[in-house]
Amino acid sequence: MIRYELIHTDPSGARAGILHTPHGSFDTPLFMPVGTQATVKTLSPEELINIGAGIILSNTYHLFLRPGAELVEEAGGLHEFMHWSRGILTDSGGFQVFSLGDLRKITEEGVTFRSHIDGSTKFLSPEISIQVQMKLGADIAMAFDECIPYPADYDYAKQSTARTHRWAERSLNAETRSDQGVFGIAQGGMYAELRRDSARTIASMNFAGYAIGGLSVGETRDLMYEMLSASTAELPIDKARYLMGVGTPDHLIEGVARGVDMFDCVFPTRVARNGMAMVEPSVEPRGRLVMKNAAFTHDHQPLDPSCGCYACRNGFTRAYIRHLIRADEIFGLRLLTLHNLWYLQEFTRRMREAILNDRFSTFRAEFFNHYQH
Amino acid sequence: MIRYELIHTDPSGARAGILHTPHGSFDTPLFMPVGTQATVKTLSPEELINIGAGIILSNTYHLFLRPGAELVEEAGGLHEFMHWSRGILTDSGGFQVFSLGDLRKITEEGVTFRSHIDGSTKFLSPEISIQVQMKLGADIAMAFDECIPYPADYDYAKQSTARTHRWAERSLNAETRSDQGVFGIAQGGMYAELRRDSARTIASMNFAGYAIGGLSVGETRDLMYEMLSASTAELPIDKARYLMGVGTPDHLIEGVARGVDMFDCVFPTRVARNGMAMVEPSVEPRGRLVMKNAAFTHDHQPLDPSCGCYACRNGFTRAYIRHLIRADEIFGLRLLTLHNLWYLQEFTRRMREAILNDRFSTFRAEFFNHYQH
Repeated sequence: MIRYELIHTDPSGARAGILHTPHGSFDTPLFMPVGTQATVKTLSPEELINIGAGIILSNTYHLFLRPGAELVEEAGGLHEFMHWSRGILTDSGGFQVFSLGDLRKITEEGVTFRSHIDGSTKFLSPEISIQVQMKLGADIAMAFDECIPYPADYDYAKQSTARTHRWAERSLNAETRSDQGVFGIAQGGMYAELRRDSARTIASMNFAGYAIGGLSVGETRDLMYEMLSASTAELPIDKARYLMGVGTPDHLIEGVARGVDMFDCVFPTRVARNGMAMVEPSVEPRGRLVMKNAAFTHDHQPLDPSCGCYACRNGFTRAYIRHLIRADEIFGLRLLTLHNLWYLQEFTRRMREAILNDRFSTFRAEFFNHYQH
Repeated sequence: MIRYELIHTDPSGARAGILHTPHGSFDTPLFMPVGTQATVKTLSPEELINIGAGIILSNTYHLFLRPGAELVEEAGGLHEFMHWSRGILTDSGGFQVFSLGDLRKITEEGVTFRSHIDGSTKFLSPEISIQVQMKLGADIAMAFDECIPYPADYDYAKQSTARTHRWAERSLNAETRSDQGVFGIAQGGMYAELRRDSARTIASMNFAGYAIGGLSVGETRDLMYEMLSASTAELPIDKARYLMGVGTPDHLIEGVARGVDMFDCVFPTRVARNGMAMVEPSVEPRGRLVMKNAAFTHDHQPLDPSCGCYACRNGFTRAYIRHLIRADEIFGLRLLTLHNLWYLQEFTRRMREAILNDRFSTFRAEFFNHYQH
């Protein structure tokens, strides 16, 4: 089962801990690379292990549609199917079906939607989502919720959040696997009162961990951080806290500063495939190198000379990676994906070290000293 | 420099040897994976080494246009640029520019053509091709030749072959690097008399090795093998023989049976990216598994249970690879590329073992006993 062990709280409130799962124990704060379709795009499982990844996230919506949960179950579950020995978390599919806009219809029972693959009509409910997630067999399953669009008026946010609470209860009741923990998701839109109430309500249910959903959906940074603070203040200290869909270094720092332990985001892998390398603000103040830029044509140094990733350690230069990206070569996408995930992994490791040494506030200040929004 | 060491000739005429290069000595027969744009598509250098690749081929035409030979030279040469410590052979660009059809114009001096990237006008000649290849710095450079289209009438084939001979001489004279060997290319179209004459003429020039070009361009198998036999019969035994652009197991066997030592082809890597796995004829008589086939939906065994490649050793099943290919996931292309190159590498190793044990004819008969054309 899932157990969170709090190791140390920094004076700032940032937490260092260990998340125990049926597939290993992992240091927190932790970042989960996204493996939407039972593969973290471009990488092998061994590469993910070399990067230091502990838990990866896979998407129920995508696997439900293709290849289908029954096939994954028949293969022995997601770990076996994709040859991944460490932790897996599956989301509930809620975020994806709500993103379909006009292609879905919500009732109290669940959501009817059209498959993006073949246009066929499908249905997901809290019970079906958990049933699918039990077949996938991840270590952590997520409750089925609605991610409230931004902006949304108070009444919609309130009603949607109340439905998310009823769905949370149904999700929890549907779970029967003893080797799988379910995390509840607090919503509340962009209203601090609803955020506090939602976190309290979800926290009152016996989930294995608690997530904050519906943030980083278009709101300002300040509003996001305000909503986050309102949420985490209501969550118990003895369980893991997971901020969903967030994965830039500035957001990670601000999340950890507000007591968050876990993150996931397609950002590092997606921007890699768009030809972008994530680097320290001391290397490039906005933290991002666009590899197609002509400035790198004759640049025969690594992406970040101080980086320990496969690409930077082995003499693959900015000039070479620029060539690969311009030539649409897959190996370029691999090198950037390896680099970006390594960067975030190392970043969480450094945050943890700072927390354990009671100097997280200094770490945070130093980062933002260089960083340009 | 380049030196071929003949270790053993089987009663059939098949040869086992060692090719010595400035970047290592490699057993022959050998198959060279193609790394057109300074990367073997989808793979890392370490993966190529794990597969057992010794020499890879890179394309002068592509690198000439992008990123340019000067940039590669500035980076320290192709080995340094792409982080590859073993052998490299560059072709001359002749094959690619002649493939451009209406977009190129041939004179005695060389070929004027339009870049497929930006439409700009470019010129390649024997001297320029060798100059570019010297900047790239591969272990083996190829003479600039014309690959005769098929079909071609006798007069055209004769005149083109005579020009290829004059260009061979100019290529040889243009080479000045002491750490790079140039291979000559025998042509002759589909005329045995021209083939014999061309091989004799090229063999009379002091090349580091000899290639047979212009085969597997649309002719029948029997005609190809007849032309190949006519060519190799005229080549000296103390230098390597390289059959260009050929890379299916049946062609490899028939090439080796006619005294060929080296091969290259995009086949194993290209079909991998089209979702095809190469397997023994005893597994599938045509030697090819099309992974999208519904037959593999519930097939939870490796591509080839007897294969030792990364994909087959680590529990990646046909069902999983089918899922990856259907979902357009890059990791699926990687697994199939690794598998196909491993298969060909292992295939050449088995041919060599058979030659060393004087049982190549048996090996050949056993293969074709299962194989369906």
